Amino acid sequence: MPVDRLIVERAARLTREKIAPRAATYDRDAVNPVDSWRDLWQEGLLAAAVPRAHGGLGVDMPTYVAMIRAIAGGCASTAMTLHMHSTVLRFIQALGADAQRRRYFAEVVEHGKLFGSWGSEPAVSLSRTFLMETAIRPDGDDYVIDGTKHFCTMALGASYYMIWCALAGGGEIGKSLSLALVPAETPGIATDGKWNPLGMRGTYSPSVMLASVRVPADALLGGPGQALGVGVLEGFGLGYAAIYLGIAESSLDFAVDYARKRIVQPENVAVSHDPNVQRHIGDLRVHLDAALLMLDHSAESWESADLVGRGLLAAKAKYLATETALEVTSKVIQVVGGRGAYRDFPAERALRDVRTSTLMPPIPDRMLEAIGKSALGLDTPMFTAKT
Amino acid sequence: MPVDRLIVERAARLTREKIAPRAATYDRDAVNPVDSWRDLWQEGLLAAAVPRAHGGLGVDMPTYVAMIRAIAGGCASTAMTLHMHSTVLRFIQALGADAQRRRYFAEVVEHGKLFGSWGSEPAVSLSRTFLMETAIRPDGDDYVIDGTKHFCTMALGASYYMIWCALAGGGEIGKSLSLALVPAETPGIATDGKWNPLGMRGTYSPSVMLASVRVPADALLGGPGQALGVGVLEGFGLGYAAIYLGIAESSLDFAVDYARKRIVQPENVAVSHDPNVQRHIGDLRVHLDAALLMLDHSAESWESADLVGRGLLAAKAKYLATETALEVTSKVIQVVGGRGAYRDFPAERALRDVRTSTLMPPIPDRMLEAIGKSALGLDTPMFTAKT
Amino acid sequence: MPVDRLIVERAARLTREKIAPRAATYDRDAVNPVDSWRDLWQEGLLAAAVPRAHGGLGVDMPTYVAMIRAIAGGCASTAMTLHMHSTVLRFIQALGADAQRRRYFAEVVEHGKLFGSWGSEPAVSLSRTFLMETAIRPDGDDYVIDGTKHFCTMALGASYYMIWCALAGGGEIGKSLSLALVPAETPGIATDGKWNPLGMRGTYSPSVMLASVRVPADALLGGPGQALGVGVLEGFGLGYAAIYLGIAESSLDFAVDYARKRIVQPENVAVSHDPNVQRHIGDLRVHLDAALLMLDHSAESWESADLVGRGLLAAKAKYLATETALEVTSKVIQVVGGRGAYRDFPAERALRDVRTSTLMPPIPDRMLEAIGKSALGLDTPMFTAKT
Amino acid sequence: MPVDRLIVERAARLTREKIAPRAATYDRDAVNPVDSWRDLWQEGLLAAAVPRAHGGLGVDMPTYVAMIRAIAGGCASTAMTLHMHSTVLRFIQALGADAQRRRYFAEVVEHGKLFGSWGSEPAVSLSRTFLMETAIRPDGDDYVIDGTKHFCTMALGASYYMIWCALAGGGEIGKSLSLALVPAETPGIATDGKWNPLGMRGTYSPSVMLASVRVPADALLGGPGQALGVGVLEGFGLGYAAIYLGIAESSLDFAVDYARKRIVQPENVAVSHDPNVQRHIGDLRVHLDAALLMLDHSAESWESADLVGRGLLAAKAKYLATETALEVTSKVIQVVGGRGAYRDFPAERALRDVRTSTLMPPIPDRMLEAIGKSALGLDTPMFTAKT
Repeated sequence: MPVDRLIVERAARLTREKIAPRAATYDRDAVNPVDSWRDLWQEGLLAAAVPRAHGGLGVDMPTYVAMIRAIAGGCASTAMTLHMHSTVLRFIQALGADAQRRRYFAEVVEHGKLFGSWGSEPAVSLSRTFLMETAIRPDGDDYVIDGTKHFCTMALGASYYMIWCALAGGGEIGKSLSLALVPAETPGIATDGKWNPLGMRGTYSPSVMLASVRVPADALLGGPGQALGVGVLEGFGLGYAAIYLGIAESSLDFAVDYARKRIVQPENVAVSHDPNVQRHIGDLRVHLDAALLMLDHSAESWESADLVGRGLLAAKAKYLATETALEVTSKVIQVVGGRGAYRDFPAERALRDVRTSTLMPPIPDRMLEAIGKSALGLDTPMFTAKT
Repeated sequence: MPVDRLIVERAARLTREKIAPRAATYDRDAVNPVDSWRDLWQEGLLAAAVPRAHGGLGVDMPTYVAMIRAIAGGCASTAMTLHMHSTVLRFIQALGADAQRRRYFAEVVEHGKLFGSWGSEPAVSLSRTFLMETAIRPDGDDYVIDGTKHFCTMALGASYYMIWCALAGGGEIGKSLSLALVPAETPGIATDGKWNPLGMRGTYSPSVMLASVRVPADALLGGPGQALGVGVLEGFGLGYAAIYLGIAESSLDFAVDYARKRIVQPENVAVSHDPNVQRHIGDLRVHLDAALLMLDHSAESWESADLVGRGLLAAKAKYLATETALEVTSKVIQVVGGRGAYRDFPAERALRDVRTSTLMPPIPDRMLEAIGKSALGLDTPMFTAKT
Repeated sequence: MPVDRLIVERAARLTREKIAPRAATYDRDAVNPVDSWRDLWQEGLLAAAVPRAHGGLGVDMPTYVAMIRAIAGGCASTAMTLHMHSTVLRFIQALGADAQRRRYFAEVVEHGKLFGSWGSEPAVSLSRTFLMETAIRPDGDDYVIDGTKHFCTMALGASYYMIWCALAGGGEIGKSLSLALVPAETPGIATDGKWNPLGMRGTYSPSVMLASVRVPADALLGGPGQALGVGVLEGFGLGYAAIYLGIAESSLDFAVDYARKRIVQPENVAVSHDPNVQRHIGDLRVHLDAALLMLDHSAESWESADLVGRGLLAAKAKYLATETALEVTSKVIQVVGGRGAYRDFPAERALRDVRTSTLMPPIPDRMLEAIGKSALGLDTPMFTAKT
Repeated sequence: MPVDRLIVERAARLTREKIAPRAATYDRDAVNPVDSWRDLWQEGLLAAAVPRAHGGLGVDMPTYVAMIRAIAGGCASTAMTLHMHSTVLRFIQALGADAQRRRYFAEVVEHGKLFGSWGSEPAVSLSRTFLMETAIRPDGDDYVIDGTKHFCTMALGASYYMIWCALAGGGEIGKSLSLALVPAETPGIATDGKWNPLGMRGTYSPSVMLASVRVPADALLGGPGQALGVGVLEGFGLGYAAIYLGIAESSLDFAVDYARKRIVQPENVAVSHDPNVQRHIGDLRVHLDAALLMLDHSAESWESADLVGRGLLAAKAKYLATETALEVTSKVIQVVGGRGAYRDFPAERALRDVRTSTLMPPIPDRMLEAIGKSALGLDTPMFTAKT
């Protein structure tokens, strides 16, 4: 199943012409990349994960990953929010009833609506155990949600938020975990709007308080406990890997371009002729190539993999991408030298975006444990209710 | 020769009470840390490198390095500008005539004047060869300077700038290199004021054009070619090492504090009880300790070392400090997790400051070559006119 | 062009049943693996690189690499000598006249003859420049060779040695480089037989003196200077990569097996349940997987690549394989613990074989430079007459 | 308390003249270095850890560490056995009654007797928990020991073995741990004599079965459970660090010497002029220097440190020494190239000795955890009865 090159090229061109030029501004202002979202919609890419039967592109995983990577090279925040939105769409496809699919997919295809996913919580570390303090309880025909969420990406920008919560009285999280699609304008959603991080600043993600947020029963996706069993959650990590590598590629491209154009005296040759520079660039290039091969391999193997297999594929791709992107984006600045730290150039934003986005779960130790367990014949799902 | 603990503690207290609280603002605004400079003056630390006979503290190198490190832990830009200023004072002590010493040292001690050092040039890479395109030529009783300088730290903030230039017609740079102390208000100094880098933003360092800048003959420090032979230039690197490690220590302290206070559920224990966290902290701690031992060792050996020896001492301290500080400041964010990237916390500024300040020459490859040459019995000075 | 699984499985089975069990003995005695060579011949694998038209298997590069890797997992010395032999066969195919091909290929297919390749010289570092002090000069209808060769693999074991030499008076090496196929029994070939290295001990490789070694004109392969231009030399490195990774896979398999079977007290569980062990195994596994993806990618791209392209493909595969295999074989011993160093287990030989075989050119710095040059648009062949 | 240079120089001279020349033979034959032990006795170094009041040198820790390091540079096995012997002597000093001290110290000083320490057991991993299956039980006026020990260094070579065992019925190991000094000729001690490891081959260490080994009551050192509380056990790790670094220094010296003498063509200069070689040597040198500073720092801080403090000092020194020595001994071979793997040169034995000796507990993960716990304010002893 080869990558759909036309779609990837469409994303690359859009990124080059429209999305990349806005990245520095979204980064500076730490706001939602709304204009780039609109462009993505108009190019059909907001519906990349919507099945063709519902009017979307219905891209396969290799094409999807290549598309996200291409966009991340120009604006990591745009790529990250598109990836979160797309993953919510995959949950809708996996868990939603027909009516839900028709309704929500149409919102995307026809109206360019965005879907966020809010999972992180203040007192709970997702990277260690999968617990949810945000509670959802039935109340008449409706459901009511109460809790606090951190890192609420696309707050004030998306139309719906898929909120991770636990059904009150539903027992252990493996049985009670619920996903509710909450319209942005629902009463009871409040945020202090604070958002001022190192990088990924265009993924506007303040904390949000949910107080008696009431939704109808059909806002729930699937039944309690189903969300962890459909092999969609694992896709978050695969997309992150694509984003890290997209940023790293773009950063390395900048270093290469700089080394070819920057002339030093008294030799009057380009920096690219310096054996030390060649060695550093070579070191970054070969590791980046290896991480890209792993990313592509994981994406190609995705469709036929089961739950545990997808966790492993994502862990391998994300682990290598994390390690590689951190190294590339830091070393590129060193190779370029003092000017590499100027905000006029993209290298410093690449470093900030990678150092920030690689904090998203699962953390490296967890990924290595998962890969090791698999190698040792102790396969367990990447995400479980119990540690 | 033990470290003068009183002076270091004075610096640490001032940093804690006055300098550190201002760091985030100087970082945000990318301006000279003028209030912190004033405090340093009032505490006598602006004259730390001024001999006691001239009213300064006349600190030895171990004390100096400990003082710079303590300040860097609170505000790296303040420490860096103090270090540059202090190094100019050492040049004045090493190369200046008695009248120059008296005059300039009094400016520091009595009036809190700052001295910058401008060496970098656009078309020349200091890290590869030591060339100067900025020219100084005699004109009657005066001298006239023309050229362009990059990374002009303390521009618009210091009272004097020690400008690295080549005596016109003076032959190879080893014989023509000259240092001129130019008062800030001298006509012909112009800057576009642009300064917007990743880190070290409080070391305001725009490019500066020098057009027919006229100075009297007694603005020159020593004769042509003398600047490279007095063992002062090597001190830049030693102070950089102190700055990197001061930042790294502060960053690691933050991570330790965070891990001790942050409680996770459902175990209800501090993150510090996580063996993975212990291992990461242990890894950073032991490498940081080793780099600190090297820094102290280099500082203690400084006084009795010759030119080549000082270059080697600085290279060893700076190389390890670079490697260690980059690792510590990046990994601390990972250990802390998502919140580690918040601008409310100091970890992200630490990463930006280290990634930026470690770009200052000599670059790692050059340091390793110098250390290797020494080990191989091929001692050469760190800074030479020819590569 | 998929890998021919039948051939690879044939090699794997032969390795498991015959070749691997002999590896410890060849290692201990530091002798040619003659019994394993005979088995390779009987299975047809000695003629893997002989075209089908000449009675060989005519395997493509992906299949070849997979075959070499499978054998290396059992006995690295057998794999290495087979790889050298096969590469000589590729030179015969690329440069030889029809009569030469018929004659030499028949020697392999019908009589199981081995071909060595002797290039290294005492005073010349192949890794830096491509010079040859061993001289060949015409003498009547014959040619006479004089010189000294180091690391003469398969000495006293092969039937022919392809000797790298320079045509006397032929000018620069790019024009004079010659390959002569010398029968082992030719007078004038002498060796002190000394061979006692750390690893790869079954690749018996003493120094050899060539004094007035006389060969007929048809012992020469192609004309002077042609050897570097046929894209065969680059294949050495690709095969080395396969060997390193085959050893590393085997070593990691041992660690996994050990961790699954070794029970510790008082917990009474297998070591495989230790999160630290899982993390270490995971770390090795994911990097090994990446290196294997790169190896396969290079092998798959080989056929359609030109000279420069093949050098790059080999450099990427060999660089990653070097780095990965050194890490895996050293860390496996650490994960296993004290018993990991016992000679009863394969892990210690794996370390010795990898540390030794990775010394073969091109060295890591050269590979990184080549990869960097390519990324920087400065493509040059990996092997050139001039540095 | 400065290092006693005379003692260190005496050890260095003896190593150079007598001990180093025998190292290759002990390594080849995997036997006890009995001639070198005799020389150590004659130079008084076998009694380095015996108090002066008992006729020994009574060296302090900095001197001891420097002495062990000097010997390890010539023969790691001799240094390791001397270190084990010396540590037993420290246990005698710390736990023994006056009569025991007089008796055993006289055996060393006057007769050159060696003392081994046997702790490792087959089913128990010392690196994880501190358990002992070897049991000692009172039987009339005597004690009887039964059990199996692994890695019994100096078997068949020493005169006494300090056997780690648990008092039968004594409860948890923290209360029952006992040390018994068993004369080598005691009936019931049997070994299969198997010993064939990667490195440290002169530390002859087969498994030993102890069947009804009867010793008088005064063979016990101190009371049950006292051994872990005297701050001696921690010294094992500090001495290991000295051994690793002694080997690494010797290996790097060889590389430097090789690079200075080896001339390459066509440039006709020593390899030491290659910038890549300079960089690699510089990299190894600076990290080795840092590890040495840490070793010295730990040794200097030893005397005044408590139990927990010594564990931390040993962990920091051993961790850095492990990391550094593994890197140095592997990279030295790479820098030297093909000849670096020849057994005629010391580099390959250095690699084997370091890869083997660094397996001794505590393992790296445990050291990092201990260092991290300390940094996090969770100080616990390095060795405890419970994990």
